[in-house]
Order: sequence, then C-alpha cells, then structure tokens
Amino acid sequence: MKVAKFGGSSVANATQLKKVGEIIKNDSSRKFIVVSAPGKRDKNDFKVTDVLINLGDAFVHDKPYLDYMEVIMQRFAEIIEELAISKKILYDIEETINSVLKWDESTEQKLDALKAIGEDSSAKILSEYLNTIGLKASYLSPKDAGIIVSDEPGNAQILPESYPKLFTLRDREEILVIPGFFGYTTTGKLMTFSRGGSDITGSIVAAGVKASLYENFTDVDSVYTVNPNIVTNPKEIKTLTYKEMRELSYAGFSVFHDEALIPAFKESIPVSIKNTNNPEVPGTLIVANKEDKEKCVVGIASDTGFSTLFVSKYLMNRELGFGRKLFEILERESVSFEHSPSGIDDLSVIIRDNQLNADKEEKILKQIKQELNPDTVRIHQNLAMIMIVGEGMMNTIGIAQKATTALTKANVNIKMINQGSSDVSMMFGIQSEDIDKAIQSLYDVFFEN
Amino acid sequence: MKVAKFGGSSVANATQLKKVGEIIKNDSSRKFIVVSAPGKRDKNDFKVTDVLINLGDAFVHDKPYLDYMEVIMQRFAEIIEELAISKKILYDIEETINSVLKWDESTEQKLDALKAIGEDSSAKILSEYLNTIGLKASYLSPKDAGIIVSDEPGNAQILPESYPKLFTLRDREEILVIPGFFGYTTTGKLMTFSRGGSDITGSIVAAGVKASLYENFTDVDSVYTVNPNIVTNPKEIKTLTYKEMRELSYAGFSVFHDEALIPAFKESIPVSIKNTNNPEVPGTLIVANKEDKEKCVVGIASDTGFSTLFVSKYLMNRELGFGRKLFEILERESVSFEHSPSGIDDLSVIIRDNQLNADKEEKILKQIKQELNPDTVRIHQNLAMIMIVGEGMMNTIGIAQKATTALTKANVNIKMINQGSSDVSMMFGIQSEDIDKAIQSLYDVFFEN
Repeated sequence: MKVAKFGGSSVANATQLKKVGEIIKNDSSRKFIVVSAPGKRDKNDFKVTDVLINLGDAFVHDKPYLDYMEVIMQRFAEIIEELAISKKILYDIEETINSVLKWDESTEQKLDALKAIGEDSSAKILSEYLNTIGLKASYLSPKDAGIIVSDEPGNAQILPESYPKLFTLRDREEILVIPGFFGYTTTGKLMTFSRGGSDITGSIVAAGVKASLYENFTDVDSVYTVNPNIVTNPKEIKTLTYKEMRELSYAGFSVFHDEALIPAFKESIPVSIKNTNNPEVPGTLIVANKEDKEKCVVGIASDTGFSTLFVSKYLMNRELGFGRKLFEILERESVSFEHSPSGIDDLSVIIRDNQLNADKEEKILKQIKQELNPDTVRIHQNLAMIMIVGEGMMNTIGIAQKATTALTKANVNIKMINQGSSDVSMMFGIQSEDIDKAIQSLYDVFFEN
Repeated sequence: MKVAKFGGSSVANATQLKKVGEIIKNDSSRKFIVVSAPGKRDKNDFKVTDVLINLGDAFVHDKPYLDYMEVIMQRFAEIIEELAISKKILYDIEETINSVLKWDESTEQKLDALKAIGEDSSAKILSEYLNTIGLKASYLSPKDAGIIVSDEPGNAQILPESYPKLFTLRDREEILVIPGFFGYTTTGKLMTFSRGGSDITGSIVAAGVKASLYENFTDVDSVYTVNPNIVTNPKEIKTLTYKEMRELSYAGFSVFHDEALIPAFKESIPVSIKNTNNPEVPGTLIVANKEDKEKCVVGIASDTGFSTLFVSKYLMNRELGFGRKLFEILERESVSFEHSPSGIDDLSVIIRDNQLNADKEEKILKQIKQELNPDTVRIHQNLAMIMIVGEGMMNTIGIAQKATTALTKANVNIKMINQGSSDVSMMFGIQSEDIDKAIQSLYDVFFEN
C-alpha cells in the first residue's frame, strides 16, 4: 500500500495530469494520492497558490480582485476542458472561492482557506479524471480523512489523534485523492501547514496508513550527489538515510521541506523521490537504515549566506557559563544559530544571514561587550558552508584527508572545519567566492576517482 | 630593567644558587629577582613547600610534626653552610615557623603563612648570598613591595592598587630579591596564590615595574615544538606569541601556570624562558606580536583525559535555545566544558575527565533526557586532544591537508576536527591509544620535512 504525492509541476496542466493518471494506473498499490496546487508550466508561468494569495490580499485591502479570480478560473477551465471532465467542478471551485470571501470569519482564517483552494481543486480534478480512465477514485477532504491540526493559521501542526483515524482509511476500496497543504482543527477550522506543506500531508498520510512506501513525484530524476548547477551531470544518489537527507537538505538540497519528513521518519517508512516526466527511472530511496555502507560519502551539499560571530577572551574556558551567557544574548535577540565551534579562548557562532540585520548585529555586539567583557568580538560575513555527508564516514580513516587535499588542490582557504559532532557529516567553511571550484574539486575526489 | 624569576630547581641547593648568582652578576639590568622555594635536587627528592604543608597538616591535627621541622631546617642549613653566609638566617627561619605555629589566627591563615616560608627563606638566602659575591642586594617582603591581594587563602588575586606601588621600586638602587607565591591583604594578612604561584609573582612584578623583559629561569633550555616524551630531541621554539603559548599550554605544555601570564600579557612585556643550568642558550621568547609569521605552525601540544557528551535530536537547529539549555544543565552540575562543536542535529561537548564522575554523568544524562528530549544522548571516554598552534595558520592554504595527511599516514582515525574558531590553532580529537603515533607523524610533517 503506497502513498504517492504529486508536486506542483506534476499537476500544472492536463498533459501533466494525464502522466499522473498513467503512473497511478501502472501500480495498483498506489492507493493514496496527495496533490499540490497547479504549479508553473514553464519558467515564466505563475503558481495558482501565489495568485490565490494575491487575490486574498487584494480582497482584504478593498482593492480590485476580479482579475486574479479570472486568471485562476481560466487555468482550471483549461485543465478541465483538456481532460474532458465534468464542468461542474469548475462551478464548484468558483463557488468555493466566493463563499470563502463572504465568510464571517477572521481575515487570517479567510486567507488560509483561500490559499488551500489550489490543492483542493487539484484533488477534485484528479479524482474525477481517474474515474474517466477506468480507475475507481474518490476525492477525500482532509476533514474526512482525519487530518486534525493545531489552531495556527499558516503554520498548523498535526495532532496525534489524526493517525488512528487515518489508519482506518486502509479499509477503503477505491483510490483516495487527498489535497495537500491543509487540515482542520478539532472545531472544524481550516488551517494550512507552512509553505510547501503538501509534502507534509503526504508524509502524514503515509505515516497514518502505515504505507509500505511514500512516493514523492517531482520533476527531477533523483537527488544528486552534488548541486547540478555547480557540477555538470553529477551522479545520482540511489539510497540515502533520513539522517543523511537531513544533513544534505540543510545546505542547498531543497528537495524536501525540513519538517516534511518527520511523520514518515517516526514510522520508518521509506520515501522515494521520483520524476513524473520519467517514472521508469528508479529515483532516490530514503530509508531509515542502510545495509551497504561501503560508499561512505553519499553527497556534498553547499550553501552561501552565512556569517560568523567571533568572540575571544583570555582564559575563556575557565569561565563557567561563558557559552551559556553568549547564547542567552542571541536568544534574547531571537537569533537562532547553526553551529558554535570553540577554541580555548575563542568561540564562534555560525548564523544564517537572514537571522541578522545591521540593527540586531549592533545590539548583539553591544550586549556581548557589556556582559562578557571579551578581548575581541566581531562579525564576519560572506561565508559558505559545505557539508560532506555519509553514514559510516566516522569510522573510515582518510576522509578528512581526501577532502582537505581536494580543497588545497583547488587553492581554497579553509576558514573552518567541524568534524565529529555529527556521525554522518563533516562541515567546511570557506569564502563564498570559492564555492564553485571547491565543490567541483570535492566532487572529483569523492565521486569521479 | 629586567625581572628574573628562578624556579624551584634553580634554588634547590647551594650549587644551583651559585649559578643563579652568576646569572644575576652577568647582566646588571637584572634588578628584580623573584624566587621559588627550594625544589627537588633529584627525582627522589622532596620539595620544601610539600614538607611545610605536611608540617602544618600534622600540627593542626595534633600529630607529631617535629620530624618535618627537622627536614626543613636541615635543607636550609646545608644551603646556608655551603654558601658560607650568616647562620642568622637559619635562626630567622626557625623563629618564623615557630611564631606562625603559635599565632592566634584561623587554621587556614596559619597554613597559608607556613606554605609561604619556603619562598620567603629562599629570598632571604639569595639576597644575603648576592652581597657576598659583590652585588648590592636587599630582601624585599611582598608587603613592602606592595603586592596587595584579595582575602582568598590559597587562591589570592592581585589587586590593581599594587601596580603603582610596585612602579616606585624602579627608584631603588640595589637588586631587590622578592619571594614568590604570596602577597598581603589590605589588612595585612598573608595570602598565597594558587600552587605554582611564583610565576604569578614574577609576572606581577614585571608588569608593576614595567620591565623590558621578564625572564623565567627553569631547568629546560626552551619550549619545544612538541612533547619531548613522545618525540626524541624535538626542535626548540625560538619565539612564541602569548596567544600561541596559551593554546599550547592548554594541552600538555606545562611550562606556565595558566594565570601566570595575565599581568605580563596586559602590559605586553616579553617573557623569556631560560635554563639556569645552561644560561647561554637563548631559550624561548614569548611576545605580544610576532613579526615573522613565515613559519606558521610553531608547536603541537597534546593531552589525554577527555570525554565527549554527544546529543542528537532531529531538527535540533530549529529549536531556539537548545544549546543554552544544555549548557545550563552542565553549569548546574558545576561542569565546565572545553569545546562544543555542533552539527545540524547534533551537539558535542568536550569535557575534561576530572570534571566528571559516574554520579555526575548519570545526573547530567537524566536531566538532558528529561528537559531536552533528545533522540540520542551518550558519553564517550578515552579521547585525546591535539592542538596544532601557530599565528598565521588561518591564512595559509593547506595546513589542514598537511595535518590530516600525517594522521592518515599514521593510520589514525580522526574522531573530531575543530578549525576556525580560533585564529591560531586547529584541534584534532583522536583515540587516546593513538596519541604517540599521531604526534610523531605530525611532528615529521610540520618540523622535519
């Protein structure tokens, strides 16, 4: 019993939806289908959800919104016409939008309900279409599915009571098509997950029905060993563990939303990344545990946009609570940090640039000076992080040597190394401008030789 | 104007004290002399301070103490006789001990005063001896010198008002011989520094008189690039910066007490490590700033006896304050830590074994489980740390490569690397049993090739 989730590009138009129908038809164990809202058909296209947000925004600010309405309706009209399914769905969609706008609810609640219409409509269209190609399928609302969430518009969290309810769906005979991205509170209010939340729904359903596999259909063949924008035609990753995936997704691998994997992870359900446009390719399988740990490095991720806060004070390591006090200052300014490597008399904190601004930096520096009385405190910008990831790395002699040799060969100055805190990764910090040559050289050493 | 401090082995007997006299005579700028208590004359010998502590301990517990008294008096008698100086000093010493024992003071205060008699006697003997070899010298009590300290027996801290007072000593014409290891409170109570505190006195006097050089005479020719117990005849270090010295002293380089350098450091006074038995050798010079940064690695230190506390939790880096809460638990148990390298979902804390015991470990693990709800938490023992130290390392490409290559060549598994948090060092964690081969291989790569 499999759960298959189809992303925005897989439901962007009728051609894509026909591919989805074919995929579902080809494997009768694909019983639970989760869909996103129609995404971009090409680079310059729009996503339906973005237009829904614009519509809501215009409406609440008393601005003209009918143009947005028309764009949305036209997109769905095209899809419905090309799939040759009942026009009734189109009236349904229009009716839903209008009724939400007229709701006597909070603005927040209204906007959340509007945002969810893309996924909801995709699910209605797909289930109808599946029936026309000879499959027995039903649209299933998240409310009827039992996806019960916390009362946090735009950031709903799944509640544990959802799972037993979801498990009963195993008894249903037909294929169930469930819209992604939202659930309902115990009092029946619609709440969306954080953006990209269709992956979350898929993962929740997979966990709930205890699926044998959670298939995540996108528009790439697999997860690659390294960013294809940096290295041409990099090798594909066949199998990844959850832990490896998580380390990779941290720095530049954006296949998954971070939160998305948690429900599947907790139930140890394997996750498969596949391509709707190329479904024969095996793709990448993400599992809890991997047998074959021979190839100890599975991938190299990288990301720019980091800063370092550097603090130095003579005899710092004699000062009980120095680190705690520093982290307290950061917490007070709501700055979450990534790592904090420390020396004898020095402590660095790696922070994403989006956590900082000139004002916050000034406040943090001021408080550190006042409360910790350091010899030196400064913030460096323009740092890039590289994660070399693989289970079994820890027990293999020579990985650090291979990596540092590759970087030296590429004439890259290593600003930072953090190895050993994680079982499955090794981190390097370098100057942002060196990132391309660094990654190419590391790729050559770990995957080409 | 130089301050010269002579350690325990330099004043252990008359032969050594004659060498000290010779050294002082050879350079008329050696105006301020600080001395330790007589140390060991050979491996199986005793240190006078240890016997003074035993004496005090026996006395306060109403046990026989006259044997200790005799041992002490005999040591000083030998020295005084061989130096052919006035026996009056010997009576002075006995008189001092007896009067301290009879004092109407707290036990703590008495023991502190007893402990200081070794240094005090050394200073009296040396100043008397210097006069017999034609030098004009006076004994100067720390009280008269103006070494004013906090009221913390055995752990006194220098008070800032000492420095202007010390500065006036520059006007004295004769050589001043000051006992190390103790000072006086504002109310006139004698207080000792922490053990090894003669280095502290030397550093304080050097800072107070704004010496051009603080010479620290020991029984080694210099600071070595690596531990001579691991590598045979390692190269000497000619010049070190304070920062480098501090990083080296952290792990296995015990030339200096950590605190000792602070006063000299604050006044940027250069410190010279020299050998009383071989004073022609230039020794090692410790300076605030080094001109020549060509040789970017100056030394490799190592130490065993570390443990790692490892905590892992899915999505840890999203959890604001996770690190802080962990450090709070450690602080609550009075455990100070050395480093805390962290990954995406993992955090390690490096702790010296002397900070832990089975009971504390259990308490810490329990609190972490309860308060932080991690996926994994465990403590690893048997870790050794290696520090590769040198200013300018940060800006030299290939240092990490050289080091990891050396370790791989020696078949050493690198458990941990921490680079970049400090400007002047790179840290490696390995299994304790690999330490000898690791250090030998690193030495070969950085200093022999």
